[in-house]
Amino acid sequence: MLDVCLLGTGGMMPLPNRWLTSLMTRYNGSNLLIDCGEGTQITIRQQGWSFKSIDIICFTHYHGDHIGGLPGLLLTIGNSDRKEPITLIGPKGLERIVKGLRVIAPELPFELKFIEIKDEYSCFNIKGYEIEAYKLNHNVICYGYNINIKRQGKFLVEKAKELDLPMKYWNILQKGENVIHDGKEYDPSSVLGPPRKGIKLTYCTDSRPVKNIETYARNADLFICEGMYGDEEKVNKANEYKHMTFEEAATLAVKAKVNELWLTHFSPSLVRPKDSLQVATKIFKNSKVGKDRMAKTLKFDE
Amino acid sequence: MLDVCLLGTGGMMPLPNRWLTSLMTRYNGSNLLIDCGEGTQITIRQQGWSFKSIDIICFTHYHGDHIGGLPGLLLTIGNSDRKEPITLIGPKGLERIVKGLRVIAPELPFELKFIEIKDEYSCFNIKGYEIEAYKLNHNVICYGYNINIKRQGKFLVEKAKELDLPMKYWNILQKGENVIHDGKEYDPSSVLGPPRKGIKLTYCTDSRPVKNIETYARNADLFICEGMYGDEEKVNKANEYKHMTFEEAATLAVKAKVNELWLTHFSPSLVRPKDSLQVATKIFKNSKVGKDRMAKTLKFDE
Repeated sequence: MLDVCLLGTGGMMPLPNRWLTSLMTRYNGSNLLIDCGEGTQITIRQQGWSFKSIDIICFTHYHGDHIGGLPGLLLTIGNSDRKEPITLIGPKGLERIVKGLRVIAPELPFELKFIEIKDEYSCFNIKGYEIEAYKLNHNVICYGYNINIKRQGKFLVEKAKELDLPMKYWNILQKGENVIHDGKEYDPSSVLGPPRKGIKLTYCTDSRPVKNIETYARNADLFICEGMYGDEEKVNKANEYKHMTFEEAATLAVKAKVNELWLTHFSPSLVRPKDSLQVATKIFKNSKVGKDRMAKTLKFDE
Repeated sequence: MLDVCLLGTGGMMPLPNRWLTSLMTRYNGSNLLIDCGEGTQITIRQQGWSFKSIDIICFTHYHGDHIGGLPGLLLTIGNSDRKEPITLIGPKGLERIVKGLRVIAPELPFELKFIEIKDEYSCFNIKGYEIEAYKLNHNVICYGYNINIKRQGKFLVEKAKELDLPMKYWNILQKGENVIHDGKEYDPSSVLGPPRKGIKLTYCTDSRPVKNIETYARNADLFICEGMYGDEEKVNKANEYKHMTFEEAATLAVKAKVNELWLTHFSPSLVRPKDSLQVATKIFKNSKVGKDRMAKTLKFDE
């Protein structure tokens, strides 16, 4: 299962009661963060999730409201006694941007590993997370992310018995490793059923509603999408600044056949995003207006 | 008169209910900020003071908790429609540090002017503020600041009449400019009494309690001083990390004969700084434990 927390829901600038849009997940003892605007470390602390377990930080793009909190966060992680490396993933320029910001966090007790995304689509497997990145359409290079937790097939006891494999090997095969028994090598597929549906979380901000989102968000259990403007009359503004309205986000949710939509990244001018919820629900029923520290545990199907 | 607001009172890292230590003043339509850690723009917004009027930002030193909020703040000031330059003052390295941080705020609608302090003591006059900077003793180069509002002497009507100066010149002389009347030049001193006591605000963080503070805080109306640790038993820690205890700050207040002391820059481990107030008051009676957005208007003597 995957714990998901929308740490903040604000776009552009942090507000007294609305932190900047950022997402944190927990899976199998490993924490992953997407974006890290000014104040993100405070909302992580409010949520009570671990700094020390942050293994991966993904960036959608490098506007200040998505990365300004990085140096402070790194210093705080450093104070949490972490020694293991942290992997940073983001569009081209990542190392240069982080180097600039680290002028105030030059010494850290852990290494930073950089993965700069260059292609339209990339996929990484780290700490049990399958991370898919794909291009969005903003006024700078920007990527959306899928966080997938794969689920292997059921362990077939009958098959293992049939092959005469001793029980001491069962767990090894279940963990995905090969075993050698009686001079013959067995791989996990010999005792596992077909892969089962895993968990799929999709996170898209900042962008216009493009085909890539429809494609990559397909069948997501949870689709977290920007909705900078609630009011459909602001579609011209959304067009100009390369953002989305609630209506556009909800339309994407329908097209991608997702299970649930959380709207986020609200304009500071959108004082009560909840008042615009029905703009989304009339298009896609299972729409929710995100709020700071809204959390959910996504589970494997029974 | 000078409005003073202690925007935050935390040291090291921002906490959910304790922003990082920063000071804002307002005088004659001009705002001055000392230090700008992560989240400073949020507490300014909570206080409701203007972003657009920030003319000067002073930095004590470049640890993350004192400057991490700068790029976000500059972006927000940019969104406030400011076009006039902003003067930044700080220890050597200012331009390099700000250049690094501006990797995420490369385009601003106003110019930044840099003043790098090189000497033990420097004094600047900007927008009606007299700003004195003097070296403290921290584990990096660090400066304390005095913000002085000078007050000229009383206008002596009798003197002006005696000199036969027409009333149209009175206001000009009061504003500090010379006038020529009947071929003779008069400077303000010819119609003004001796300078009167102005307003003096002293701000010292981060530092050990050094002689410079005692010297430059002398007779301050308000002395805002770091008190990283409430408990006197932490004096060894204060020594190691180059900070102060409440007792040390209060002792400085006595030595410098200030009028009032506000303690700030509390360690995250100091959960209830107020519980340690009497450690300070038993040494210096007019001690107060700072809290976020504690404000006061310092007035000229009647």
